Amino acid sequence: MDQNVFIPGFSKLDRNKKQDLLLKGFENPVKAAAVVESYRHSDPAVQKLHDEFSENTITNYFLPYGVAPNFIVNDKMYMVPMVTEESSVVAAAARSARFWYSKGGFNTEVNELIKNGQVHFIWSGDPLILKETFPELKEHLLEGTRNITANMVRRGGGITDIELKDKTEEMDGYFQISAGFDTRDSMGANFINSCLEEFAVILRDFVGSDRRFKNGDKDLRIIMSILSNFTDNCLVTSVVRCNVKELQEIAGDMPAEEFALKFQQAMLMAGVDVHRAATHNKGIFNGIDAVVIATGNDFRAVEAAGHAWAAREGRYKSLSSCSIENGMFSLSLTLPMAVGTVGGLTGLHPMAKLSLELLGNPDSSELMGIIASAGLASNFAAVSSLVTKGIQSGHMKMHLSNILNHFGASDMERKAAIEFFSTRKVGFSAVEKFLNNFRVNND
Amino acid sequence: MDQNVFIPGFSKLDRNKKQDLLLKGFENPVKAAAVVESYRHSDPAVQKLHDEFSENTITNYFLPYGVAPNFIVNDKMYMVPMVTEESSVVAAAARSARFWYSKGGFNTEVNELIKNGQVHFIWSGDPLILKETFPELKEHLLEGTRNITANMVRRGGGITDIELKDKTEEMDGYFQISAGFDTRDSMGANFINSCLEEFAVILRDFVGSDRRFKNGDKDLRIIMSILSNFTDNCLVTSVVRCNVKELQEIAGDMPAEEFALKFQQAMLMAGVDVHRAATHNKGIFNGIDAVVIATGNDFRAVEAAGHAWAAREGRYKSLSSCSIENGMFSLSLTLPMAVGTVGGLTGLHPMAKLSLELLGNPDSSELMGIIASAGLASNFAAVSSLVTKGIQSGHMKMHLSNILNHFGASDMERKAAIEFFSTRKVGFSAVEKFLNNFRVNND
Repeated sequence: MDQNVFIPGFSKLDRNKKQDLLLKGFENPVKAAAVVESYRHSDPAVQKLHDEFSENTITNYFLPYGVAPNFIVNDKMYMVPMVTEESSVVAAAARSARFWYSKGGFNTEVNELIKNGQVHFIWSGDPLILKETFPELKEHLLEGTRNITANMVRRGGGITDIELKDKTEEMDGYFQISAGFDTRDSMGANFINSCLEEFAVILRDFVGSDRRFKNGDKDLRIIMSILSNFTDNCLVTSVVRCNVKELQEIAGDMPAEEFALKFQQAMLMAGVDVHRAATHNKGIFNGIDAVVIATGNDFRAVEAAGHAWAAREGRYKSLSSCSIENGMFSLSLTLPMAVGTVGGLTGLHPMAKLSLELLGNPDSSELMGIIASAGLASNFAAVSSLVTKGIQSGHMKMHLSNILNHFGASDMERKAAIEFFSTRKVGFSAVEKFLNNFRVNND
Repeated sequence: MDQNVFIPGFSKLDRNKKQDLLLKGFENPVKAAAVVESYRHSDPAVQKLHDEFSENTITNYFLPYGVAPNFIVNDKMYMVPMVTEESSVVAAAARSARFWYSKGGFNTEVNELIKNGQVHFIWSGDPLILKETFPELKEHLLEGTRNITANMVRRGGGITDIELKDKTEEMDGYFQISAGFDTRDSMGANFINSCLEEFAVILRDFVGSDRRFKNGDKDLRIIMSILSNFTDNCLVTSVVRCNVKELQEIAGDMPAEEFALKFQQAMLMAGVDVHRAATHNKGIFNGIDAVVIATGNDFRAVEAAGHAWAAREGRYKSLSSCSIENGMFSLSLTLPMAVGTVGGLTGLHPMAKLSLELLGNPDSSELMGIIASAGLASNFAAVSSLVTKGIQSGHMKMHLSNILNHFGASDMERKAAIEFFSTRKVGFSAVEKFLNNFRVNND
C-alpha cells in the first residue's frame, strides 16, 4: 500500500477482490497469491466454515499442532494437544510429563467455577436509597432475565449471586451491579453479557419508574454492562510432589539437594523481581496457551485473568511457588481461568473438536486441570533448565534447524552442520558461512 | 487414552506412528485421521518446514487470517494483517481504522528500543568487594562476549549497558548483573540469552580467580541467566485525537459530548477497578495479538510485558487512557513490546513473511507502532460499543452465523434466521428450535 487511498466497503467485497487489493503492492503478486491459496483448506465447505469465524478472512494462518504424551493428571493419562509456534515448548512439556509420570503426576483442583460480570454506572443521587431498594431490584433482575437463563438453569447453572458494589471511594459516584454466573461447561461470554445488558435495562426502568428515586433516571448514568475477564472465583490449582532425591534424574552433575535449593531460589526471585516474574509467568503461559488454543478457547482471556491475578497483592509476581519440606519437593500453580468445552469454537473448529476428543471430551473443570498442568509442566521444565545447563543449548538445536531450513540445507548439509555446531555458538551468519564453505568444499 | 501406559520414545517415532497412537482411542479413528490429514499443507516441503517449527507436530491448527484496511499510522496507509479466532475483532479494528482515517489516523512513538536480561545470583560474600570490582568485571563481560556481539554491533546494536543490581532488600544475598541490549530489528531472544549465559561463565571465572574475593566461587551461587520479558525500556505509544464533535459519527442517538464523557468515565473505571481493567486490557490485546501472530512474533512475550506493565504502579489498571481538553478528545495507549521483523519465524513462516510484505517490510519500531495502533483501535471500538449499544448486538450476529453453520443451515434457512433473530435473543437452543420449525414448515 503505497498510496493513502481509502478503500470503501472492503468487507463487502468477495474474497478474490479482497485478495487482489491485498496483494497489489507486492513485488510478485502472482507468487504471493499462490502462497495465500496454498494455505486454504482443500475442502471448500471447511474453508467456508473457517472464513466465517472472523471477518475479511483471506486464508488461514498455520500454527504447528503437536502433542505432549504421558501426562498424568489426577491419575488419568492424557496425550495433551498443544498449538504453539515456539520451538521447544512441546518438547519441554513432554519432558516434564515424563518426569512426573512415575511420581504421581499432576494433581489438580478447581474450587469454584463462578464467572462474574458487572453493570458499571454512575449514581448522582442518594446512595442510601440505592442500597435500601437493592433487594427489591435484585428480584427484578433475576425475574427479568429468566428467559435468558432458563436453558442454563436447566443445565444446572445460571446466576449465582447479584450484589451492589459501592466503588465511590475509588471514583465519584461509581457503583456496580456485580453478578456471579455458573456457565457450566461453556466459557459463557454471550450468556453473561446478555444477562448484564438486560440488567442494565431493568436497572434503568426500576430507577425511572419507582417513586422512591426522586430524580429517577436523571441520577443514573449507565456506562457499560460487560463480563469480567478477571475470574477470581474460577481458580484452578495444579500441584506436583516428589522426594527431593528423585530430582537427581534431571539435576545433571549437581546433587539433587542443590538442584532443589537452586530451583527454590529461582522461584523466590520470581516472587520479588518483576523482570524475572514476567518471564517466569511467560514460561507458564507457553504451556497454558498452547492447550487453550488447541481446544478452541480464548487465550487473551486466560492471559488477562492470569496476569492480573499475578498482581493481586499490589506487586506483580510469579504465579507458581515451590516448597521443600521434610525431604519433599513440591511445586504448585494457581490461577484463574475461564475456558469452555461446549459453545464457541470448541464444537465448530474441527481441530478443536479433535483436541477435545483426544482428551476424552473433558468437562470444563477437567480441562482447566489439564491446562494448568501443561502450564506447570512448562514452568518446571524452564526453571529446571535455567538452574542447570541454561536454556540456550536446547533452543540452539531448534534454532539451527530453522536456520538450515531457511538456507534450504540438504540432508547431508544438515547432518554436517549439526555436528559442526554441537560445540559452537549457533548464529545466522555463522550457519550461512558454514554452509557456503561446505558447499564450496563439496562441489 | 483409556490406559495409563507410558509411551516411551514418542518424539522419535515418525509422524504416522505418532498419529496412530494419537487416534487409537477415537470413536472413529479413520475419520479423525482424515481430518488431521486435511489440515496438512499440500506441498510436503512446506509442511516439513511447519513441522519443524515445533516438536511432535502432527498437523496444523488453522486460525483465520484476515485484514483490517484503511489504517493510517504516522501518515502512512496500511492494510493490517490480523490472525484471530475471535469473531468481530477484525471488524472492530476495521471500523476504528475507518473512523480515524479522516481524523489524522494513529500517531505512534517508540522512545527506546532496549531489551534487558539478567544473571541472577546469590552472593554470600562481602557485597562491598562485589561492588568495588564491578567496573573491572564489566570490562571482562564486554570483552568476553565480543565474539557473540560482533554481528549485532555491525548492524548497529549490541550491549548498551551493564549494571550490578543489589536486590538484597527483597531477598537475602540476591544480586543481578542486569544488562541492556539493542537487538535492532530482531526480537533478540537468542542473542540476549547467549550473552547472558556467557556473562555467567565470566562472572564465575572472575570471582573464582581474583584474589580480592576471599572465598572465591564458594560465595557465589549463580541461579540463572535469562532475558526479561518485562521490556520496560522498549515502549511504544499510539495516540488518536479528534474534535469531540467529530465523535457524533459513532455516538448514535447520543450527543457527541455525552458520548465523550461516558467514554472517559469507562476509561477511568478501568483505572480503578481490576475486574474492569483486566477486560479492558484484554480488548486491547485482541487487536495486538492478532497482528503479533500474523507477523510471526511471540504473543506470550507481548502479553507478559503488557500486563506486568499494567501493574507497575502497584495496582493492576488499564493500559490506555483518555482526555478531553478544549473540545479535543484524545485516546492513548502505551505499553512495552518486544517484536522483531527479522529472525525467528518472521522470515521462515511464509504467511508471516507475507504479512510483513503487506505492511511494506517495516523495521521493528514501525511494526511496534502498527501493532499498538491495532490495539488502540480494538480498545476504541470496544469501549465505543460498550458505552452505546453494548457489544451483544454485534457479537450476536457472528454468534448466529456460527450456530447456523453448526446446524448446516442452507442459504434460505440462513436468510430466514437472520431476519427472525434481528429482533430476538440469539441462543443455541433458540436457533435450533427456529430451524426445526422452519424445516417442518418448508418441507
